[in-house]
Amino acid sequence: MIIVMKPHAAETSIKAITNYIQENGLTAHLSRGTEVTIIGVVGDKNRLSTENLISFKDVDRIVPVTESYKLANKKFHPEPSTVRVGNVSIGPGTLTVMAGPCAVEGEEQLLEVARAVKAAGAVILRGGAYKPRTSPYSFQGLEEEGLRYMQTAGKETGLATVCEVVSHESLETAVKYVDMIQIGARNMQNFILLKEAGRAGIPVLLKRGLSATIEEWLNAAEYIIAEGNPNVVLCERGIRTFETSTRNTLDISAVPVLKEKTHLPVIVDPSHAAGAYKYVTPLAKAAVACGADGLMIEVHNDPAHALSDGPQSLTFEKFDSLMKQIMPYAKLEGRQFPEKRDLEEPSPEEE
Amino acid sequence: MIIVMKPHAAETSIKAITNYIQENGLTAHLSRGTEVTIIGVVGDKNRLSTENLISFKDVDRIVPVTESYKLANKKFHPEPSTVRVGNVSIGPGTLTVMAGPCAVEGEEQLLEVARAVKAAGAVILRGGAYKPRTSPYSFQGLEEEGLRYMQTAGKETGLATVCEVVSHESLETAVKYVDMIQIGARNMQNFILLKEAGRAGIPVLLKRGLSATIEEWLNAAEYIIAEGNPNVVLCERGIRTFETSTRNTLDISAVPVLKEKTHLPVIVDPSHAAGAYKYVTPLAKAAVACGADGLMIEVHNDPAHALSDGPQSLTFEKFDSLMKQIMPYAKLEGRQFPEKRDLEEPSPEEE
Amino acid sequence: MIIVMKPHAAETSIKAITNYIQENGLTAHLSRGTEVTIIGVVGDKNRLSTENLISFKDVDRIVPVTESYKLANKKFHPEPSTVRVGNVSIGPGTLTVMAGPCAVEGEEQLLEVARAVKAAGAVILRGGAYKPRTSPYSFQGLEEEGLRYMQTAGKETGLATVCEVVSHESLETAVKYVDMIQIGARNMQNFILLKEAGRAGIPVLLKRGLSATIEEWLNAAEYIIAEGNPNVVLCERGIRTFETSTRNTLDISAVPVLKEKTHLPVIVDPSHAAGAYKYVTPLAKAAVACGADGLMIEVHNDPAHALSDGPQSLTFEKFDSLMKQIMPYAKLEGRQFPEKRDLEEPSPEEE
Amino acid sequence: MIIVMKPHAAETSIKAITNYIQENGLTAHLSRGTEVTIIGVVGDKNRLSTENLISFKDVDRIVPVTESYKLANKKFHPEPSTVRVGNVSIGPGTLTVMAGPCAVEGEEQLLEVARAVKAAGAVILRGGAYKPRTSPYSFQGLEEEGLRYMQTAGKETGLATVCEVVSHESLETAVKYVDMIQIGARNMQNFILLKEAGRAGIPVLLKRGLSATIEEWLNAAEYIIAEGNPNVVLCERGIRTFETSTRNTLDISAVPVLKEKTHLPVIVDPSHAAGAYKYVTPLAKAAVACGADGLMIEVHNDPAHALSDGPQSLTFEKFDSLMKQIMPYAKLEGRQFPEKRDLEEPSPEEE
Repeated sequence: MIIVMKPHAAETSIKAITNYIQENGLTAHLSRGTEVTIIGVVGDKNRLSTENLISFKDVDRIVPVTESYKLANKKFHPEPSTVRVGNVSIGPGTLTVMAGPCAVEGEEQLLEVARAVKAAGAVILRGGAYKPRTSPYSFQGLEEEGLRYMQTAGKETGLATVCEVVSHESLETAVKYVDMIQIGARNMQNFILLKEAGRAGIPVLLKRGLSATIEEWLNAAEYIIAEGNPNVVLCERGIRTFETSTRNTLDISAVPVLKEKTHLPVIVDPSHAAGAYKYVTPLAKAAVACGADGLMIEVHNDPAHALSDGPQSLTFEKFDSLMKQIMPYAKLEGRQFPEKRDLEEPSPEEE
Repeated sequence: MIIVMKPHAAETSIKAITNYIQENGLTAHLSRGTEVTIIGVVGDKNRLSTENLISFKDVDRIVPVTESYKLANKKFHPEPSTVRVGNVSIGPGTLTVMAGPCAVEGEEQLLEVARAVKAAGAVILRGGAYKPRTSPYSFQGLEEEGLRYMQTAGKETGLATVCEVVSHESLETAVKYVDMIQIGARNMQNFILLKEAGRAGIPVLLKRGLSATIEEWLNAAEYIIAEGNPNVVLCERGIRTFETSTRNTLDISAVPVLKEKTHLPVIVDPSHAAGAYKYVTPLAKAAVACGADGLMIEVHNDPAHALSDGPQSLTFEKFDSLMKQIMPYAKLEGRQFPEKRDLEEPSPEEE
Repeated sequence: MIIVMKPHAAETSIKAITNYIQENGLTAHLSRGTEVTIIGVVGDKNRLSTENLISFKDVDRIVPVTESYKLANKKFHPEPSTVRVGNVSIGPGTLTVMAGPCAVEGEEQLLEVARAVKAAGAVILRGGAYKPRTSPYSFQGLEEEGLRYMQTAGKETGLATVCEVVSHESLETAVKYVDMIQIGARNMQNFILLKEAGRAGIPVLLKRGLSATIEEWLNAAEYIIAEGNPNVVLCERGIRTFETSTRNTLDISAVPVLKEKTHLPVIVDPSHAAGAYKYVTPLAKAAVACGADGLMIEVHNDPAHALSDGPQSLTFEKFDSLMKQIMPYAKLEGRQFPEKRDLEEPSPEEE
Repeated sequence: MIIVMKPHAAETSIKAITNYIQENGLTAHLSRGTEVTIIGVVGDKNRLSTENLISFKDVDRIVPVTESYKLANKKFHPEPSTVRVGNVSIGPGTLTVMAGPCAVEGEEQLLEVARAVKAAGAVILRGGAYKPRTSPYSFQGLEEEGLRYMQTAGKETGLATVCEVVSHESLETAVKYVDMIQIGARNMQNFILLKEAGRAGIPVLLKRGLSATIEEWLNAAEYIIAEGNPNVVLCERGIRTFETSTRNTLDISAVPVLKEKTHLPVIVDPSHAAGAYKYVTPLAKAAVACGADGLMIEVHNDPAHALSDGPQSLTFEKFDSLMKQIMPYAKLEGRQFPEKRDLEEPSPEEE
């Protein structure tokens, strides 16, 4: 941590800070410029609530020099991680596609979608049983019934399954039925839920909050890992900006930035980012091209009658076309397409 | 709801939509322009998932014409509401100041702060027992112990009390100790928690999410009210923008906008918005001047050693000065200052 | 400037940087932490393009410690400045109200508005002769003819005048007719125009760009002052955020932030920020309460038929009411209301 | 245009509006809902300043239904345009790479960079002679001398050339030396400059403003085209958001959105968006994958000593690697790589 003093700070102000630092068992290094003095703090910063130093006299700014997340940090874990979900891998060397309806609406509907996305090459079935909706009067999900359909559809098709959880109860229920739980954008800083996910014993898909910085997102992942669960996959799904021609602004740069800062796998959800089906395929291609480890795509048997997010859902035909279009991009990136791997070339780790 | 068709939309496309609307028991009104046809939908829109109409052929845009929140909506409840917290009123005619430390750190500390803010004219004691923190390694609060101190401090000083809840458990515990619960910015769209707050039986302070639109915020309030709890107070605390000279950007316009859209009381938290104590007083004055029903201010006995949010906390002296400075503004706005009301001119409703 | 090295940076990397710094005639101060080494750079930083140091091996981050603007900086000019526009002062001790139509539409219209805003207490007449409009098909202003009307209206009413300029030509023409020129939000980083404004010889009202940080804004002011024109007034007029219930988000915190960083006067334009007349008065009161030196308000004789920005313009009656409402706030802030000063209590500096 | 009335609007209010519409030679279509009445306006909207209707009694909202830009609009020009710059095409079927230094620093430096980018496959040389810089104390460019070097480098290498202009003078000078002029982000709404670019007689590269919506950007293009210059290329270069891990947030979705709304070619500048060289290659790949017609990349002979934007500039080696990596992506998108086309397979239009 660096403390930048105001120009021509009083000697007594500098002394007060170095004393405070030393009292807390840390070391202060002074660097005196012509106008500005800088104080470097060396030692275990957990010993003092360092942000408070801003309250000391003549302090201009506090500049942190190390990230607050450790377990998610690539600096201390340079090799990229692979997360296993059921019999599926997410990480380097594969491109993992999760697909399915925004909301589980019924058993037949889900099975129909599951078979279609499986046929097109998806390896994980997504489907919402607990739906966070802006208005209390919108459809809120089938809850445990929906989870049961997810389990059935997973078994029938061989797809692994992922489902969003929104509370202690839904999490406790979900772990009984699905292979991976999702923490959605609106709960990215629901720290209680993050801690519970850290104790859930199954992999976690952590979506980025609508206005979360990458730093905050990695700290949210740290909450989960710190509870003993290293199986976290990050999902970029668009951030909130002034632009309204898409529902959110897909922050595609987050992919290479995350690849530099963390060892955790990163996937992209172009459906929620765009909010319109017609932009999903080009954005999916962009995501693969810039290094994403996977995709999450909304697919519906009848988008015009979907109970949630119809406008951004792909029909079976459009999803099949998307999968065909991204395949060569996956190859260029040296990524096995899960479909092919599962069906034809089982990887050693799956045996 | 209005459906705007693309220029020169096919007659069959228009027919498909009007049929769909009529099948759902609604009425379609056509308005044919030289280039563009517009379809107005009349009737109970809950009958169809209207956003899906965007998936129909030749549809350009869907424009909603009524808000999705009803109970929070001023159109259906024109008189401003007053919310009672303990023996304190929040609403028209009063200016209610909530003050206290970001985090409850100990019994003595809390009592000291409580006495100081009471002496300066605050009527509600704020204090965090459950702290949502970006990093899992930051101080997370004293939990139930902190709530107990809040209760003690409230009894000793006669202040009403408010405390943030972050989960089912914390909510269940908090209602036993404090007079009002707070849903924080990070949980503004934690819909499960909102519903539980709606069943909690005590007033709720609902902070705005960092990137929540006013429309989403009012829908969040609707979740609480729809469960039977009309005692919701909204708190503007800054939104996330590109500007970094303050921690968040206080959206002061939210005050007059909310006054137009909802009957719920509105308060402002300049401490979290600014993130720096030196901007708190001018922002507090601005909030009073533009119609806020109250303020929430962070005050600490020793900001330099605070366990959370020291940089934005006021000392007792600075808080006292703030209160003296806002008093004439409150009068200009025709608002009784709680201090005076409590000590000298008890209002009829308190008897 | 501080250079933060990556954890465990190689000794050769550190050496390369300190050499580079010394070759450029500057001094390097090392502070070695347990993980991270920090290099402070002391001396005249204009000697090297310091941002490039980020390209050196093992460099993690560059942290500037001094602002790039000097002439606008309060650190080097602690007393607040007063800017004279015609016979009007903008600065400490007064509250200066500029008012008038968004666009000058005709001589009669302008005179009518000028008389009305004068009667209500405004001291500067605003009016657009060159209108930057999003669409090329919108009304673009009366140009020199409009400036002539501004001059006439100023003479007839005794009001000082301000008019936006958008180019070399419009600036050259405007200085012949009006008392102050305005650089609008869209031209805040039109550096050529800023330099020309710095040589114009009359005061400049510099509006904040829609997405300009306060730092960038002050650097824009620096461009004007560096050319020899210290008479710059800053005008906050709303920034672009995700919120759509107002046209822009008035960054009210910019007022106290600027008061800390610069000696230049600061005014607020609630009309452009809100984009709706009904929010103008509460925002004007907020601006006065938090320390603004003045206001800019759009007023129109017939808002429903205005050629530009009708929705946010006040009628004469509403403007008169606004002025009556802000007067007591101005007094609380120790500010003379220009109307009173001009008419009844001429200040010494005006004699 | 649609006028949405407030719930239960008075009949007299509705009548006032329909009268006003009819007086202006337009037609009003009423659609009466249970709560809300909607008025559709049919006819040539240029006949009235429609936004003012918001000032009428009982009006809730105005919803525009057609875009204000016509010449840039794909609805009226469905075929994608190709823009010729010197002997280079930008448009469907090719992937055009512009590369070069942020600032022209000297004749030798520019030639060295020009030869290197040509060798790697770039077909247009970029280089700044007029640099818009945040601080007045930063290097501002070599001006006409720099343009002369651009011309020389273009002739020597056979590359076409593009250079930013920032004013009337720089534009007049630039057209004598280079093949294409650029309007930068900060001048995207410098409408005077846009009009002059429309009369310049050479192609224009129009960068997106930092906080410009896509709608505003297309209106800026309309300014140029409306003056008679249809040769406009749009360049996405990142927008301003809250995220600080990249300098700006590359809005990759803008590419498919623009492809739907306009016939103009679209290129992407990942260098300015990222602000860090390490993210440039993955973002370039993403841009190609989602349909961009070209790229603009900053390349420097010695980034550590560049006078501007060193941190985001690629070395020759890194640029060569980028070009090799994007080539297969260009092929997947059915795009000829200009290098190959020019050297080996001249297209008919070039003869």
